[in-house]
Amino acid sequence: MSSDLIQRLVTPAQTKIVMLIMDGLGGLPRQPGGKTELETAHTPNLDALAEQSILGLTIPVAPGITAGSGPGHLALFGYDPLQYEIGRGAMEALGVDFELGPDDLAARGNYCTVDENGCITDRRAGRIGTDINQKLSSLLSTINLEDAEIFVVPVKEHRFAFVLRAPGLDDALTETDPQRTGIAPLPIRALDDKSQKAASLVNQFIGAAQKVLESQSPANMILLRGFARLPALPSFQEHYGLRAAAIAVNGMYRGVARLVGMEVLPLAGSALDDEFAALEEYWERFDFFYIHVKQTDTCGEQGDFDGKVKAIEAVDAFLPNLLSLHPDVVLVGGDHSSPAVLKFHSWHPVPLLVYAPFVRPDGIAEFGERACSRGSLGTIPAVSIMPIALANARRLDKYGA
Amino acid sequence: MSSDLIQRLVTPAQTKIVMLIMDGLGGLPRQPGGKTELETAHTPNLDALAEQSILGLTIPVAPGITAGSGPGHLALFGYDPLQYEIGRGAMEALGVDFELGPDDLAARGNYCTVDENGCITDRRAGRIGTDINQKLSSLLSTINLEDAEIFVVPVKEHRFAFVLRAPGLDDALTETDPQRTGIAPLPIRALDDKSQKAASLVNQFIGAAQKVLESQSPANMILLRGFARLPALPSFQEHYGLRAAAIAVNGMYRGVARLVGMEVLPLAGSALDDEFAALEEYWERFDFFYIHVKQTDTCGEQGDFDGKVKAIEAVDAFLPNLLSLHPDVVLVGGDHSSPAVLKFHSWHPVPLLVYAPFVRPDGIAEFGERACSRGSLGTIPAVSIMPIALANARRLDKYGA
Repeated sequence: MSSDLIQRLVTPAQTKIVMLIMDGLGGLPRQPGGKTELETAHTPNLDALAEQSILGLTIPVAPGITAGSGPGHLALFGYDPLQYEIGRGAMEALGVDFELGPDDLAARGNYCTVDENGCITDRRAGRIGTDINQKLSSLLSTINLEDAEIFVVPVKEHRFAFVLRAPGLDDALTETDPQRTGIAPLPIRALDDKSQKAASLVNQFIGAAQKVLESQSPANMILLRGFARLPALPSFQEHYGLRAAAIAVNGMYRGVARLVGMEVLPLAGSALDDEFAALEEYWERFDFFYIHVKQTDTCGEQGDFDGKVKAIEAVDAFLPNLLSLHPDVVLVGGDHSSPAVLKFHSWHPVPLLVYAPFVRPDGIAEFGERACSRGSLGTIPAVSIMPIALANARRLDKYGA
Repeated sequence: MSSDLIQRLVTPAQTKIVMLIMDGLGGLPRQPGGKTELETAHTPNLDALAEQSILGLTIPVAPGITAGSGPGHLALFGYDPLQYEIGRGAMEALGVDFELGPDDLAARGNYCTVDENGCITDRRAGRIGTDINQKLSSLLSTINLEDAEIFVVPVKEHRFAFVLRAPGLDDALTETDPQRTGIAPLPIRALDDKSQKAASLVNQFIGAAQKVLESQSPANMILLRGFARLPALPSFQEHYGLRAAAIAVNGMYRGVARLVGMEVLPLAGSALDDEFAALEEYWERFDFFYIHVKQTDTCGEQGDFDGKVKAIEAVDAFLPNLLSLHPDVVLVGGDHSSPAVLKFHSWHPVPLLVYAPFVRPDGIAEFGERACSRGSLGTIPAVSIMPIALANARRLDKYGA
């Protein structure tokens, strides 16, 4: 569907929508014939809500495609993830809660080890501790370029986020990481004219970084890859007429929410408790709330089937708090699947529940993958979720006479 | 799906297809946990047919989008309603059964009241009676323009349809209705060069209308908006190789059918009886019959749950007449939902039944929203209905070797 169509049909209303996202929600049975994580979880509140809701399965990007968190979330928010791409460098910066702006060019950085000839001997510098990374990143942050600001933000072990800030930077750049040892890091080359300025500034920074790090050991050099700017997206306000708030602990999700113009709410802590407290506290001030739960995905990626079951049950326990606010539309779903048996994101469709006063309830009293596959929503692209939510919130006019 | 593909694969056959459309068929339960209008209706004939059919739900335009009757019908007929738009003026003219042609530019008209300075005091002239409207429209019809024909057709109360006929008219025009009182009607402006001729002619007409009406009270001026030409569509004959007939009482549906090249059959009266009599009478002369039932939508929009139930039961009673003609394919569905509880068109998917000798029957002996959501057709775009019908009518060749 053309997203212009939605923008054209949007009409004001006083209704409130809550989108509760359990990251990596979809799963797989632990053994043949068994139940998935969600089907195993004891979820009396979600099951009761499911009975009054419509159910379905969502496809984040396209059938068979395993979505990263960036595209998975863009689709949830109604932006075609094949049209809007968030590059790896930008994702890395968002992941450390860096507030990327329109003049920023971001990259993924590695500390590495080079020999006396400048040739790489270890692309990850022996996976140095995060504390060493922090010290080195402080050193690099002292570098001054004449025409740009630079930011070096430690991530974990040997990884850091690099951001160059100046007007007129473009991101068609080659990478410095040759992906093998025995040769020197490659110089950055611009792949088009608009990226010449960025190439020159990044190369200046790399030259300065080499000098700053040369006496360090084992991390005495850097590698940069995945140069990316943020895509320019219409905001939730202009696109949907929604004042939208994001409740998320992890930087990447906060960053993607900020990218679509949501206000990221401050949290007292990183527990579910804190997330749902923020929902209550800010309830009057917004039309749309995105709540992100990370633990489901973390357990899925660790292969921790039981942990993922518990994480789902913990969310279920908070559902009455959410419902007590009397939202007009409640969406419960995920950005992609992360089955514990795969220890990774996967391509499997993701369960979705839509609760609203004017749905035509499926009467299926269970929230699970197989239950959702019997729901009347069918198996739909995740980008359809927002139009369905807006319709149920009575926020879309009729198309045509 | 590309409609070019269908046109390329169409192959002649002797089979007959009947598409029975209950306008606004889809509904909602009257109270939580209850049944919809269709589920409430006693429909022994539809239920028996359902058991031998495949069932599904159709999405007229896109998930979450509430379709008007124009786009809803274009989709049923297999034309992408986002690609082909029927503007509001054209819909108004079709609605009074005006036979719009390729040289026609149509608009929605209002009779209004202006004061001695020409400023609007009532945009609807106190909602004058339709009889006064008819008298005024006759007066306006006497206006002569040098380079164009004009038609002024009364609709209801203060509303009329205006049609300007001349070669080379385009419809990128501003509107005269300022949408508020206290100021004069706005002159028409062309928004592109191709619409200059139309702007000049419409302004001439408005000037003449002002003179004709100035001594009238309270309706002494007109407002025009929604200028539109009909889109050019490939006809049913060229697109599908079908000689198609339309059986419909109301002008708008007759108009959309005419737009896609159907022959609109004459009816002895406006009852269901007359519609099914026409089906029988013209049975040998066409390959495809579209039968439109308006009463379901009328009751839905009036919030008359029981009336809609009765309207569905009335159609059910005629089903044996239809089946006695031995059609090869029977489609029963709707152009959109109109739940009585919403008193309006809605975004909810619409029940569909496809009966043909070579369907793989779902064996679900009920025609209702929830029954259809369990059907093997799934939840599909309404534009897919025609290809499925053609396939079951053995009217499509294989694609590729």
